[in-house]
Amino acid sequence: MAFKIGLLGLGTVGTGTVQILADPAQRHPLVQELELYRVGVRTLDKPRSVELPATCLTTDLASIVTDPSVDIVVEVLGGLEPARTLILQAIAHGKHVVTANKAVIARYGEEIFTAAAQSGVYVLLEAAVGGGIPVIEPLKQSLCGNRIQAIIGIVNGTTNYILTRMQREGGDFSEILADAQQLGYAEADPSADVDGLDAADKIAILASLGFGGRIKLSDVYCEGIRQVSAADITYAEKFGFVIKLLAIARREPLPLGIDLEQLQIRVHPTLIPHPHPLANVNDVYNAILIEGDPVGQVMFYGRGAGAGPTASAVVADVLNIAALLQVGRSGLTHTDGTPLLDPLLACSHQHYCAIAPMAELVTRFYARFLTQDYPGVIGKLGTCFGNHDVSLESVVQTGLQGNLAEIVVVTHDVREGNFQQALAEIRNFDSIHTIPSVLRVL
Amino acid sequence: MAFKIGLLGLGTVGTGTVQILADPAQRHPLVQELELYRVGVRTLDKPRSVELPATCLTTDLASIVTDPSVDIVVEVLGGLEPARTLILQAIAHGKHVVTANKAVIARYGEEIFTAAAQSGVYVLLEAAVGGGIPVIEPLKQSLCGNRIQAIIGIVNGTTNYILTRMQREGGDFSEILADAQQLGYAEADPSADVDGLDAADKIAILASLGFGGRIKLSDVYCEGIRQVSAADITYAEKFGFVIKLLAIARREPLPLGIDLEQLQIRVHPTLIPHPHPLANVNDVYNAILIEGDPVGQVMFYGRGAGAGPTASAVVADVLNIAALLQVGRSGLTHTDGTPLLDPLLACSHQHYCAIAPMAELVTRFYARFLTQDYPGVIGKLGTCFGNHDVSLESVVQTGLQGNLAEIVVVTHDVREGNFQQALAEIRNFDSIHTIPSVLRVL
Repeated sequence: MAFKIGLLGLGTVGTGTVQILADPAQRHPLVQELELYRVGVRTLDKPRSVELPATCLTTDLASIVTDPSVDIVVEVLGGLEPARTLILQAIAHGKHVVTANKAVIARYGEEIFTAAAQSGVYVLLEAAVGGGIPVIEPLKQSLCGNRIQAIIGIVNGTTNYILTRMQREGGDFSEILADAQQLGYAEADPSADVDGLDAADKIAILASLGFGGRIKLSDVYCEGIRQVSAADITYAEKFGFVIKLLAIARREPLPLGIDLEQLQIRVHPTLIPHPHPLANVNDVYNAILIEGDPVGQVMFYGRGAGAGPTASAVVADVLNIAALLQVGRSGLTHTDGTPLLDPLLACSHQHYCAIAPMAELVTRFYARFLTQDYPGVIGKLGTCFGNHDVSLESVVQTGLQGNLAEIVVVTHDVREGNFQQALAEIRNFDSIHTIPSVLRVL
Repeated sequence: MAFKIGLLGLGTVGTGTVQILADPAQRHPLVQELELYRVGVRTLDKPRSVELPATCLTTDLASIVTDPSVDIVVEVLGGLEPARTLILQAIAHGKHVVTANKAVIARYGEEIFTAAAQSGVYVLLEAAVGGGIPVIEPLKQSLCGNRIQAIIGIVNGTTNYILTRMQREGGDFSEILADAQQLGYAEADPSADVDGLDAADKIAILASLGFGGRIKLSDVYCEGIRQVSAADITYAEKFGFVIKLLAIARREPLPLGIDLEQLQIRVHPTLIPHPHPLANVNDVYNAILIEGDPVGQVMFYGRGAGAGPTASAVVADVLNIAALLQVGRSGLTHTDGTPLLDPLLACSHQHYCAIAPMAELVTRFYARFLTQDYPGVIGKLGTCFGNHDVSLESVVQTGLQGNLAEIVVVTHDVREGNFQQALAEIRNFDSIHTIPSVLRVL
């Protein structure tokens, strides 16, 4: 019994997928049952690193998603359109879908999953987060008995590469970014990565799965790494921290008398204490830490991008669907005729998760100030923070820059709203020259 | 639609399982469909930390596995018997089985999986390796498109706890073991842990899944941590290594002209270089690193034991089976009437994996010698190793103990057989007092 695959896109991930299917030896025997039936590309005459029969290739992508012979559509085009439309067309034509497209799923996930539930097909997306790292399926299946408390991830390889090099070499953000672009580790337009947008897409997807509700992407607080300087990395190191871009989703403890549960969901550069398992995740590696009751902390680590890892995740999803088809688990219906889907694999959530405003976040802060009038300014800082209930763990004069003194403050756990109010006042002090960086501490 | 669970055993893991089922809020909605129907215990009158209706408890375990109402049997008794017999009885009565029993699966896996294939039921075992860390399901499903090259795990929490404390405190094995026993981190009879037998069971299970064949437990080379001394840990640290008990299964590169594929499979204390992801896995934490083509390295990390983590894995397996039952995927047959099982979830392998003899292993070694006649002995060591094609990376005199000089040797990659032959000769040198430790290097 062969399963016919319609592949949309023959870029890096598409090529990696073809390579696995063309070389099934020593893989799961089910790989041999996968037939690469149609491949949709932009142009037919481009040189390719994989050989495919000319009859297999087409530039008419819609013809693939509507072809009655195709069992599973694999979408590895990237970008919002035509990916979204093709996925919806495939679903409408009863195809199961495998996608690596975090941008489409984070924005149109509910439209897609609702359509899939109506059509009785699966939409799997292991490759959309963490490349080859198994995290979506483990979250859906292996951890499904847990009450998920938190998902904390290093989910963007480009920013982790840049921060790791800044840490090792002491270089500044812009020079390392330029070098990373030359080496192919960062895009010509790096915004999706360095401004945290890619990480925001990914944490929205993970949070939706982990907390069982829809997430509005606009609810995800997002701050990139452009403001992180070599100086911050050095001071963080002295205090026993490394700086990583973290994507965090966490259940908020409920205040007394409130029964609406809220989530925090946010992406920002974060100081992580050295012994923390995420602190040792370097270069382009990704890792996702999940905290659940009763499992405690589990972490998944590996390469978060690249042809091989991402294709590994794509093929796993294809094989999972092929296994469903092989045992006739597809096309079943409830007694009322509605499609019957595996409750762990299918995910169509009905409600939106309530997201707590950032002002209510309770966290530690690190802030760096350039000041005149040292040491007098320390008293003023302390008084202002104190007035806003911001308790300080340490205040250290870290250096002099010309006639300016540099002061680094680390707080205890404080309410973000209070901290930001204090900061707004401090910004107007005559003795404050600038506040070059404000970072949160895990 | 409720699924009736028959639970065998109400020890640590059984109690953790009951606690999850009794408190379904904020877990996957399917948890509410699980009904704890019967619980088999040794004595009825023991005080318990969980409340159960008296009608639910029984000391007649066989009555549970043969009860026509029970859908899923959960075996968390531990030990070989009566666990093995009850699992086989449950299968014969058409029950799906979830087990946390690595000892039974490593020894009787094929008997059990063959029976399960004949009866058309699933036997799931996520909890048998790595406690709550998802690794069995990811290996079966998320990585199933890969050609697995290696599985390297820290899979025994007790030995990792002991080695971590030896490293931090500089204490010797026997004193830290005694303390660990008092604190409940090691058993009164610690042999299964400290002699590597538990790790051997686990790597046999992982290798069987990863490499798709049966593994004879007697083929697993197994060496525990009793010989690891505080001195070795100190020297390893100086050379940039930490010492961990690793369980390793790896595809052997095929020598030219040989087409029978072989595996290495072994458990032994190992020097790991500091930057390696497994080097930072400390205390009772476990981690399993899997290398696959094309995924590269992925690692799974978490608590490898304890009520909560292990129960998390047990309940995940139960929910996976409940999901199968809910969509009517169970009880299907091929046209010839044989049961039809999901090819990714069911695992009944027909052949045994060929295991390479340890003598053919190619690895680096660390060895510590107490010698007379220093420095003359160094030339003799070097000549003898050279005669056996053992190339040395470093030879360092690390100290003096009375009139004995201590010498630490680290080799390049060498054939184990050659190294052991050289060692046998060296042991007979007049100038060699003792060889307190010989360890492999990752």
